[in-house]
Amino acid sequence: MPSGEAMQGPVRIWRNARLATLAEGAPGLGIVEKGAVAVRDDRIVYAGPEAELPAALKSSAEQIDCEGRWITPGLIDCHTHLVHAGNRANEFEMRLAGATYEEVARAGGGIVSSVKALRAASEDELVRQTLPRLDALIAEGVTTVEVKSGYGLDLENEAKSLRAARRIGKERPVTVRTTFLGAHALPPEANGDKAAYIAKVISEMLPAIAAAGLADAVDGFCEGIAFSTDEIARVFAAAKALGLPVKLHADQLSNLHGAELAAGFDALSADHLEYTDDKGAAAMAGAGTVAVILPGAYYFIRETKKPPVALFRQHGVKMAVATDNNPGTSPLTSLLLTMNMAATLFGMTVDECIAGTTREAARALGLLGETGTLEAGKWADLAVWDIERPAELVYRIGYNPLHRRVWRGK
Amino acid sequence: MPSGEAMQGPVRIWRNARLATLAEGAPGLGIVEKGAVAVRDDRIVYAGPEAELPAALKSSAEQIDCEGRWITPGLIDCHTHLVHAGNRANEFEMRLAGATYEEVARAGGGIVSSVKALRAASEDELVRQTLPRLDALIAEGVTTVEVKSGYGLDLENEAKSLRAARRIGKERPVTVRTTFLGAHALPPEANGDKAAYIAKVISEMLPAIAAAGLADAVDGFCEGIAFSTDEIARVFAAAKALGLPVKLHADQLSNLHGAELAAGFDALSADHLEYTDDKGAAAMAGAGTVAVILPGAYYFIRETKKPPVALFRQHGVKMAVATDNNPGTSPLTSLLLTMNMAATLFGMTVDECIAGTTREAARALGLLGETGTLEAGKWADLAVWDIERPAELVYRIGYNPLHRRVWRGK
Ligand SMILES: [Zn+2]
Ligand SMILES: [Zn+2]
Repeated sequence: MPSGEAMQGPVRIWRNARLATLAEGAPGLGIVEKGAVAVRDDRIVYAGPEAELPAALKSSAEQIDCEGRWITPGLIDCHTHLVHAGNRANEFEMRLAGATYEEVARAGGGIVSSVKALRAASEDELVRQTLPRLDALIAEGVTTVEVKSGYGLDLENEAKSLRAARRIGKERPVTVRTTFLGAHALPPEANGDKAAYIAKVISEMLPAIAAAGLADAVDGFCEGIAFSTDEIARVFAAAKALGLPVKLHADQLSNLHGAELAAGFDALSADHLEYTDDKGAAAMAGAGTVAVILPGAYYFIRETKKPPVALFRQHGVKMAVATDNNPGTSPLTSLLLTMNMAATLFGMTVDECIAGTTREAARALGLLGETGTLEAGKWADLAVWDIERPAELVYRIGYNPLHRRVWRGK
Repeated sequence: MPSGEAMQGPVRIWRNARLATLAEGAPGLGIVEKGAVAVRDDRIVYAGPEAELPAALKSSAEQIDCEGRWITPGLIDCHTHLVHAGNRANEFEMRLAGATYEEVARAGGGIVSSVKALRAASEDELVRQTLPRLDALIAEGVTTVEVKSGYGLDLENEAKSLRAARRIGKERPVTVRTTFLGAHALPPEANGDKAAYIAKVISEMLPAIAAAGLADAVDGFCEGIAFSTDEIARVFAAAKALGLPVKLHADQLSNLHGAELAAGFDALSADHLEYTDDKGAAAMAGAGTVAVILPGAYYFIRETKKPPVALFRQHGVKMAVATDNNPGTSPLTSLLLTMNMAATLFGMTVDECIAGTTREAARALGLLGETGTLEAGKWADLAVWDIERPAELVYRIGYNPLHRRVWRGK
């Protein structure tokens, strides 16, 4: 054996498997019957028909018999607000008992309650509260998760949130990508002055967060109840000047043309998109901006306007699917259930749902070079499933058929 | 210690807990702060304030510190078709890809495919396929589950289904109640002759099933696509003559006045009930028939007509909530998620959802004397939860906060 190979470490082969490789350009899910995945250290070195495994890989490898089970890329939840403090079960209960939004607000509810709770929590406490939610995702085969700030709304607390997000990625075998969402809502102390708060985001918070290396991307909430396209454009220009890619909560409750705004800044993704129109979809297609579909919030707040899935198909916009886990509008910690919702509520196909939580979710995070498909060179992030066909991952509701999860080869 | 007490076995006390006793007559969830549950053998001997625990119980008991966690009665899934063979993920996938119901049927889909699969499976195979679904329910604190036949549609295969249902109750620490649902659908060999098939259910299947002690209750599917009220009435009369209580799939897709039919036979429950009207609700209230609400099927088949929850409240009809787990219209194995759906989709309150999966579910099975509340004399079926307030059981989506489950004291 050449010394170079020995230094690379031993090979492990997952054999006798059916693969949904999600390889780009392959039809459908990129299915390989009688497949194998060979892994060296934390990288895939081969994924394809077992019969075509290079002999050099096979000779000294540890072999794991998958007994005909399916292997997909590890799942990716590309839009979450996983780091938050407390929950809003009390609001949920009040609203079911007939309370109006005003009564809930008077009782201290709404996003302000999440901001107060997050500011009151230490970084350790945030990590402690977030890990069970992360564990729920991991238990279903998630190997990469995006986490946004946005409940701190000042430098100290936004930085604390992002540090907590980085830490959960050290406490568990999972890749965490962080997103700075300072432009999520106006903090109470801003007294309604959006322009002044956005100026603070741009001149104080964003540069400090970027200098500390705490954010992999920058996000905003463009909506009547949040920030205008002009305000978001200023944040995005500042982010791009710092070399950070952007993404946007766009067109969820009304059409402010957030999708076009995002595309204009070559955003990695635009998310929600219930009200996006033809022009928005065309702009996204042109910029390669991924549409992140979030059925959990649609379900939880009883929204009736669906995102224009047919329009995205028509324009060739790639679609990802994510939990949007957050305490106010989507207390959802199952990416499998999210796929079922995307299919049941929005008519996304089985292939779209599975691509949306693997390849397209990786694309929405700018990570397609590293994960999201079973291809040589990528991280060895795998999910092995006790299923007869991939459609079962989308069809079942509240059931976890995960047999084994592999993150970076382990 | 008197010898009688020694023979009864040692006492175990779950202390430092918050109890949702669901005791009948208590307001709301029957909450006891600083509560304790004392268990001897398989029965609760005390549930109430820890300060009022009888000294005689306390003296020699093993004590378990719940550290302020909540205890509810073990959950009860009172309507399932858990014993079935195969799944219908392929149909789900075809429909999402645009296939019509006719095309699905031509491809061998629909209930007939479940009948074929069940008939082809051995009893052992049925048990093997059902256990993972049962385990998913158990993992969320379910201690009692109802299981229907109805995919066999001849004596041999209906009996096989019910034997498999009894067996899963021996393989796992859970109470199984079986329901004979011969009047579920017309088998293919009946060639459309409903009268002849119902005659066979009454004269051949039902007496044999009853004689073998395989059924705790008898159910039917009263619907245009299934059986008429007259046909169901004949089955119910035969069941009552054999001493078996009845329940009914009623008014799901149209109003055939199934709720009144069920009430007329003092049914334990009428289930689905999307189209039930004022007269139906009044009849159910008069007979003490429980309304079993099944949001999973409503969600999965994109039904738009909701069950008349307000009408049931108005008439004082008790409401239970169940998964309706089945391969065709509700491949759902999470009772917690079912509660969230009942709240989110139908506006049931937190208290109604929790009562609906404990006390009222026990009532719907005729088991309220044994389980469904935390009260002395009942089975020691408990669920201990890592939550701050009961509303979290309903609010969260795809998250399992179960700390520990106790079935019959263990
Ligand atoms: Zn979001
Ligand atoms: Zn049913």
